[in-house]
Amino acid sequence: MLDPEHLARIRLLRTDRIGPVSFAQLIARFGSATAAIEALPDLVQRAGGKAIRVATHAQVTAEVARVEAAGARYLFADDGDYPALLGHIDNAPPVVTFRGEAALLNRPAIAMVGARNASAAACRFARQIAGELAEAGYLVVSGLARGIDTAAHEGAMRVAGSGLASTAGVIASGIDISYPPENRSLQAEMGERALVIAEQPPGTEPLARHFPYRNRIIAGMALGTLVVEAAPKSGSLITARLAAEAGRDVMAIPGSPLDSRSRGCNELIRGGATLVQSVSDILDLVEPFAAGQTQRVAAPAPRFSAATPAVEPDDKARQDIVSLLSAAPVGIDELVRQSGIESGAVQMILLDLELAGLIERHAAARVSLI
Amino acid sequence: MLDPEHLARIRLLRTDRIGPVSFAQLIARFGSATAAIEALPDLVQRAGGKAIRVATHAQVTAEVARVEAAGARYLFADDGDYPALLGHIDNAPPVVTFRGEAALLNRPAIAMVGARNASAAACRFARQIAGELAEAGYLVVSGLARGIDTAAHEGAMRVAGSGLASTAGVIASGIDISYPPENRSLQAEMGERALVIAEQPPGTEPLARHFPYRNRIIAGMALGTLVVEAAPKSGSLITARLAAEAGRDVMAIPGSPLDSRSRGCNELIRGGATLVQSVSDILDLVEPFAAGQTQRVAAPAPRFSAATPAVEPDDKARQDIVSLLSAAPVGIDELVRQSGIESGAVQMILLDLELAGLIERHAAARVSLI
Repeated sequence: MLDPEHLARIRLLRTDRIGPVSFAQLIARFGSATAAIEALPDLVQRAGGKAIRVATHAQVTAEVARVEAAGARYLFADDGDYPALLGHIDNAPPVVTFRGEAALLNRPAIAMVGARNASAAACRFARQIAGELAEAGYLVVSGLARGIDTAAHEGAMRVAGSGLASTAGVIASGIDISYPPENRSLQAEMGERALVIAEQPPGTEPLARHFPYRNRIIAGMALGTLVVEAAPKSGSLITARLAAEAGRDVMAIPGSPLDSRSRGCNELIRGGATLVQSVSDILDLVEPFAAGQTQRVAAPAPRFSAATPAVEPDDKARQDIVSLLSAAPVGIDELVRQSGIESGAVQMILLDLELAGLIERHAAARVSLI
Repeated sequence: MLDPEHLARIRLLRTDRIGPVSFAQLIARFGSATAAIEALPDLVQRAGGKAIRVATHAQVTAEVARVEAAGARYLFADDGDYPALLGHIDNAPPVVTFRGEAALLNRPAIAMVGARNASAAACRFARQIAGELAEAGYLVVSGLARGIDTAAHEGAMRVAGSGLASTAGVIASGIDISYPPENRSLQAEMGERALVIAEQPPGTEPLARHFPYRNRIIAGMALGTLVVEAAPKSGSLITARLAAEAGRDVMAIPGSPLDSRSRGCNELIRGGATLVQSVSDILDLVEPFAAGQTQRVAAPAPRFSAATPAVEPDDKARQDIVSLLSAAPVGIDELVRQSGIESGAVQMILLDLELAGLIERHAAARVSLI
């Protein structure tokens, strides 16, 4: 079913040290995943890193079989149904797996996130808002977690009766794993008549470190993110920050300062998030962008302007960049400015360093030494 | 105890058709209340209005006796204790009556207003915030109404023990009348060891039409107004608007959109009011201005630049202005612009028209035909 290049893309992505950013750079540099995989061992050796273990064809064939057995499919970044807004974020996933109706991905989306231990009143309100958003033609995106996430999905499912429901659950595990246990039937039902999306390969348990990556997909798919009830320093606020960094609207429902579960939302509002009291407040904000979703964000600049930089970076350039790096994350634009080296060459050096296992990428286009 | 000029000021203010704006214009034009009262009948006749009934000396002497009997005193706009910030609003009261400790008026003030039917939780929170503001050296100004007003006063009284309490109640009745009945003892106690302020003459019942005037004093005295819990279209929102018009901070405590008593506050925040979750949020906002209160607002421009305009307005000018007026309020600056007549002359014409009983003044320096 998958052609060799698509299989190669999955192999490349499942290879150590390859993340969404290095994936895109390698494709830009070598033209295809097939060519990148061939070039990879040499590239790593030249960069002075330990040998890289490229995912095998057999490994990926087994993965594909497992995805199919789970009733799921792959969605690649260049597929027609791949959410346009998601493609605009810095580290958009090159491929995800999903169950359900891909056509839903063409709907304008609103993310709804909030506390796992949300109050009953907040959950009821989340259900109501999600239902109204779904009825208004919006895809309600959330994370299939307890509390507000569940309420948001349920609200959208409920108004659909037994028909196609306008909601997508982005999970931190593989597509074949349900979590938390009490959402097993909800996730199964969404896999039939809504959407469940997973970035991790099948069989992956939902580990804590996966959640921020999952959250970037939730925020990235949506025109705006609504936080319903969230304590300070909660994961929902990370999603809100990712939405803001992607240039999307951040919205929050206020609550009494006497309830600690409201203080995160209230802080967001103090920081500039739009206070939302009803669905009409949301629609007022996002409707102008909902028709032509992609007008919302500027057309993406060619992400790696110098897949072929004017001058191949030499050892001195490489050393200059390394000397500017430390364990504290620094912006790539800052490296370009301080080194005086052409942006494309800096990107190429960073790719080499990443493949050599020497640096780590962080949110907002920042890197640090490992 | 009061000298003849001060008695004349009270007479002038208790005269029909004289409000704070025309009072100030007459003083600016004639130099004193005594001179203004002498000039008044001619002025009205010249303006073509029905004869004006000037308050008599006997009437005012009786009022003064009644104020003294109530244990109250007069506070004139040029007294040292008159609150500096209050003097900066457009229609500052030329005189008020008060009971209690005038020295409290020199403290930086925060207004706290909210719903009469506020929730128990909001009242508790208001008491706490008021207590903390009082302890921080702020004067807590409110309206001695049920609900949030009462809670705010009580909070400030409580932290004072039996000493001087840092709170002022501005009432819509005369200084000798208590309202509502359940606040009789609170008002009496505040008259002893805090402050009670009334603009209306003694004996005046608290009529609905007095409340907006009362509210302008609450907002006008304060660096900022905090709305604690308020439904849409409530009186508290009027106070907030008056505060904003006077260039003061508007703050609001958010609440769940599911509680209608929070929706007014939430709308204020949507409209730009500062979301407040604790006293420190308030202090962060107002502290930079609390030391030198009056730096907050620009020094007042001489309010009536042409008590003696360059050219006395003639009949044609008067007719031009009248033709620009209608039952819909229009800004005085707009009249100046459209008529091309000098600002001082326009003010003089408007004063004549007001004394003639032909026009009415509205908030934000607007006027309409009656």
